Amino acid sequence: MNPNTELGPALQALIHRAEQALDACLPSAEQSPVQLHRAMRYAVLGGGKRLRPLLVYAAAHALGRDDAALDAPACAVELIHAYSLVHDDLPAMDDDALRRGRPTCHIVFGEAMAILAGDALQALAFELLAAPDAAPDAATGMRMLHALGRACGAEGMAGGQALDLAAVGEKLTLAELEHMHACKTGALIRASVQLGALVAGADDATLAGLDHYATAVGLAFQVRDDILDVEGESAVIGKTAGKDAAADKPTFSSIIGLDASRARLAELTAIALGAIAPLGPRGELLAELARYAAQRHR
Amino acid sequence: MNPNTELGPALQALIHRAEQALDACLPSAEQSPVQLHRAMRYAVLGGGKRLRPLLVYAAAHALGRDDAALDAPACAVELIHAYSLVHDDLPAMDDDALRRGRPTCHIVFGEAMAILAGDALQALAFELLAAPDAAPDAATGMRMLHALGRACGAEGMAGGQALDLAAVGEKLTLAELEHMHACKTGALIRASVQLGALVAGADDATLAGLDHYATAVGLAFQVRDDILDVEGESAVIGKTAGKDAAADKPTFSSIIGLDASRARLAELTAIALGAIAPLGPRGELLAELARYAAQRHR
Repeated sequence: MNPNTELGPALQALIHRAEQALDACLPSAEQSPVQLHRAMRYAVLGGGKRLRPLLVYAAAHALGRDDAALDAPACAVELIHAYSLVHDDLPAMDDDALRRGRPTCHIVFGEAMAILAGDALQALAFELLAAPDAAPDAATGMRMLHALGRACGAEGMAGGQALDLAAVGEKLTLAELEHMHACKTGALIRASVQLGALVAGADDATLAGLDHYATAVGLAFQVRDDILDVEGESAVIGKTAGKDAAADKPTFSSIIGLDASRARLAELTAIALGAIAPLGPRGELLAELARYAAQRHR
Repeated sequence: MNPNTELGPALQALIHRAEQALDACLPSAEQSPVQLHRAMRYAVLGGGKRLRPLLVYAAAHALGRDDAALDAPACAVELIHAYSLVHDDLPAMDDDALRRGRPTCHIVFGEAMAILAGDALQALAFELLAAPDAAPDAATGMRMLHALGRACGAEGMAGGQALDLAAVGEKLTLAELEHMHACKTGALIRASVQLGALVAGADDATLAGLDHYATAVGLAFQVRDDILDVEGESAVIGKTAGKDAAADKPTFSSIIGLDASRARLAELTAIALGAIAPLGPRGELLAELARYAAQRHR
């Protein structure tokens, strides 16, 4: 994998760690059913920002925990993210042929295998998280699984994608747009932070503060995405620039304009940083991720 | 729902119970995102044999447990089954327009919504099973979630569907065909029995015996399906008769012939009934389901 040069060495090391854990948790490409396993590995191991695993690690790190117990939740959230991209790219959905600078999963493996690979990745995420000894204790494990299930479902990621599809050609308010993103990408980003914090034994007040942080980071990430869709170059962002506008999807820049989008981004970053201020210097990785979400160029 | 007249009153009552629990666990059709919720409800509440929830209830019943704690696992396995049918019916997969005598989910709601409804149903199954107090205790809950995750993934249902797709036009051996079905439908049927037994506190020896039963019932169900595909009428079986043969899919009848298929069915039923013999009269519902799987007409 190419290192993400927009991140410091500690986060880059964690990307490497996440990618090794992902490689290890995925079924072998030599083992039957070979095509399914290949499609799953292609969907997950082809790069990506690894924001969600980084948030798992960074949240636990901020609470003083950093051990192998974080790898299962870090993998689980990335498997869910990868499956959602495979399904979103399908011809019946966003019909995207390019992702991270490579042909999308259904272009390489066919639609049927892409659907199945997504389905199997979702199942694998829950299986990993429920594995014996994956969680510090069974009660915490159940809370983690419940949080992940909610984040993926009709009130979370899948629901957000349904709202996104329904929004094509519609005129949304800013509140409606933010709600759509809060479901589509926000729910899984919040779950990532929550999973890391739960492994680290966070109390309810700490969980609430971190959730405030995660909500702002998730939305900031999406505002930045819309700005990059207007200003970015396809070769840098790894997908087709101007695609959202061309698809007549509502975006922050189309609803409130670029300047107000940048102002909202600054506001969200301030909220995120404020929410983790009580953690002091231990929150440094979380702070770096908040700044990255708002300032990234790809 | 029409009662399934091939089942006795105790199992019919359990179908009713499962359908009430399913109705209650699904998101409201009045609530946003409305189309997604409608598609989910359509996929789950449109009838069906409810074999998997019945196996959850019957396994627990055989071990002396029968209470509300069974409803979450009963719903979870049926949600998984329903999602798999929605995805299997998609144009890129089996391209089926008719299921249980009704238009399939993507015909009614469109392909994108059908993909998302399936995705959200899978997430809901895990969410339900991980809900606070869903399991008798957290350790048992983790075992149940792990079993369900494995059953759904690349070594289970999704893997079996990949093998099924790869088998079109191929000449499989009987062992290969049985392995495909053991993954595609067998894994979830075994998980259903296991979940019911785990709620009831089964020890490892009991779990092993019940797994032997479930493996035989799962395969018998599929052998019967192939026989019905040859002998049945579309109006009775609720889907297009002769479809597997027309699609050039390997079947028991095409590989070993109808007579040998009937003999295998009798053998599998004997294995299933033998495996639950130690349970005595308490295993009666499981025995009825084994006979039903082998003798059903739809």
